Amino acid sequence: MANYHSLINEHFGALELPEEPKNLYQPIRYMISQRGKWIRPELCLQACALFGGNVKNAIYPAIAFELLHNFTLVHDDIMDKSDLRRGNPTIFKKWGINTAILTGDVLFAHAYQYLLEYKSIGINKMIYLFTSTIIRILEGQQMDMDFEKEMKIKIDQYLEMIRLKTAIMFASCLKTGAITANTNAENQEFIYQFGINIGMAFQIQDDLFDVYGNTETIGKTNGQDIASNKKTFLSVKALEIAKGEDLKTLKNYFSKTKFDFDEKFNAIKALYDKYNIRSLAETQIQKYYQDAYKNLEALKLPEERTTPLIDYVKQLMYRSF
Amino acid sequence: MANYHSLINEHFGALELPEEPKNLYQPIRYMISQRGKWIRPELCLQACALFGGNVKNAIYPAIAFELLHNFTLVHDDIMDKSDLRRGNPTIFKKWGINTAILTGDVLFAHAYQYLLEYKSIGINKMIYLFTSTIIRILEGQQMDMDFEKEMKIKIDQYLEMIRLKTAIMFASCLKTGAITANTNAENQEFIYQFGINIGMAFQIQDDLFDVYGNTETIGKTNGQDIASNKKTFLSVKALEIAKGEDLKTLKNYFSKTKFDFDEKFNAIKALYDKYNIRSLAETQIQKYYQDAYKNLEALKLPEERTTPLIDYVKQLMYRSF
Repeated sequence: MANYHSLINEHFGALELPEEPKNLYQPIRYMISQRGKWIRPELCLQACALFGGNVKNAIYPAIAFELLHNFTLVHDDIMDKSDLRRGNPTIFKKWGINTAILTGDVLFAHAYQYLLEYKSIGINKMIYLFTSTIIRILEGQQMDMDFEKEMKIKIDQYLEMIRLKTAIMFASCLKTGAITANTNAENQEFIYQFGINIGMAFQIQDDLFDVYGNTETIGKTNGQDIASNKKTFLSVKALEIAKGEDLKTLKNYFSKTKFDFDEKFNAIKALYDKYNIRSLAETQIQKYYQDAYKNLEALKLPEERTTPLIDYVKQLMYRSF
Repeated sequence: MANYHSLINEHFGALELPEEPKNLYQPIRYMISQRGKWIRPELCLQACALFGGNVKNAIYPAIAFELLHNFTLVHDDIMDKSDLRRGNPTIFKKWGINTAILTGDVLFAHAYQYLLEYKSIGINKMIYLFTSTIIRILEGQQMDMDFEKEMKIKIDQYLEMIRLKTAIMFASCLKTGAITANTNAENQEFIYQFGINIGMAFQIQDDLFDVYGNTETIGKTNGQDIASNKKTFLSVKALEIAKGEDLKTLKNYFSKTKFDFDEKFNAIKALYDKYNIRSLAETQIQKYYQDAYKNLEALKLPEERTTPLIDYVKQLMYRSF
């Protein structure tokens, strides 16, 4: 499978961060050393290659997006009181709230600094896109938190939330890669839409993993969304279509903050099964996936250009259950 | 006194912020509605006028710096567990940690968005400066936190901390104003140094106010730095020169987190008085103030250009005790 992980790895290894103050940069080094899936920088580099650009030119914006993503994770972990991330203690858990706040902030600032290392035409457009992307992500995060206590979320509200919180970042990474390849505005728009669709599919897939995923493959324990009453495609859909006693049971479990985890997880999973929620989610994923393909076809690029991106997305989507 | 508060007020009044999500933008409106001293935007506009620029062109960067400053305040208030800011409950106190984290983050992002509204030559230089400024502020904030538990801080370390945390922002605001007026690089450097000196003087003045300030004029209660064991020019200097029992007393009080406030405040103030700390601080302020004047003189500008800035700085420095 062709991907750019070695190029990304090389640049993360050589990331120029100050030594001092130690208490600020040590947590950042800790965060970065744990790597991640590197989906966002990969999408940026893939889009550059797709439009015939030199991927080495796209590496700074690619790294910038990954730093930005890490900033959101560090702050999300405080808000969600998460103990573990990528199998290790979170910065919040290891160093406390204050360090985690400041670490996130400085990652945010360094993301801009990395982006500014890109010195070619298109830098201004890129900075605009980068800035509006982060604003949308934060708005999505607020909606996500607001939804936790809300039982009457419509599926469209949920989809808007994940569009802001996840899909727009995917789309912006791809569009940024396209800008580095200096392709035209129409192509930039198609690849942006492709990113939105892939991002939506990815997030719903992630929602499915929380209940049906193989713990070892996905690298985290099942049921975290259920435990924290997060709204997912599954819970919103189930709350939408369940009736009578079933609806009451769901609402009851989703408003509890103290509970026996296995009991709660199994009860909710049983209702998901009863209402075929998994299959509804899979249908929705397929729809987004197919729309993404149409966006890609519209570019009318030769197969040797589109194949690497399609392969990468397939790998991303079919992480095994 | 000529200042640009009405222009700043007009722009803050018309600040374009989304309505939704309410829980994200309501705290931001709350924060902004309380105004502030607006020192940073004022310095930006003053520098633009100093070099003969059209101040209306500098308004977007000016507002951007104030938003950036507000971002740092919102996050600092979480870290310092501050209940009050500008006489009102802090966002942290009113809405909790999670909202305060996200509010700060989105202020940070909107600061960039405002900066990007400046569309003339120099925007790239401005974004670089803006980014490196925020990194320095965050590094300074980390040093400030690190120093709280440390009794052997040298005065030079303290001065470096306030240079990062306060002075560089002053300098960058002024330099940004100079960029909008399209003055040469040498002038930009002089006004930057002027800003460093003014910023250093301002911070030491602020340290003095904590102990000797008139509560009504400075808008906050005395002794907050003392209560939270913050390192200030006064405490670092006192710990540096006090001997024997006095040093032991200082160290003892500065390591306490539980104490009778009046007892602690009075004991420390008595030692500051004994060692003439106030006069040492005032001498240091005068030194920075005079250096700042030299920077300004080096510009060789006509008096009618420099007078408004000098008047503004005088007003800033001689806030009454």
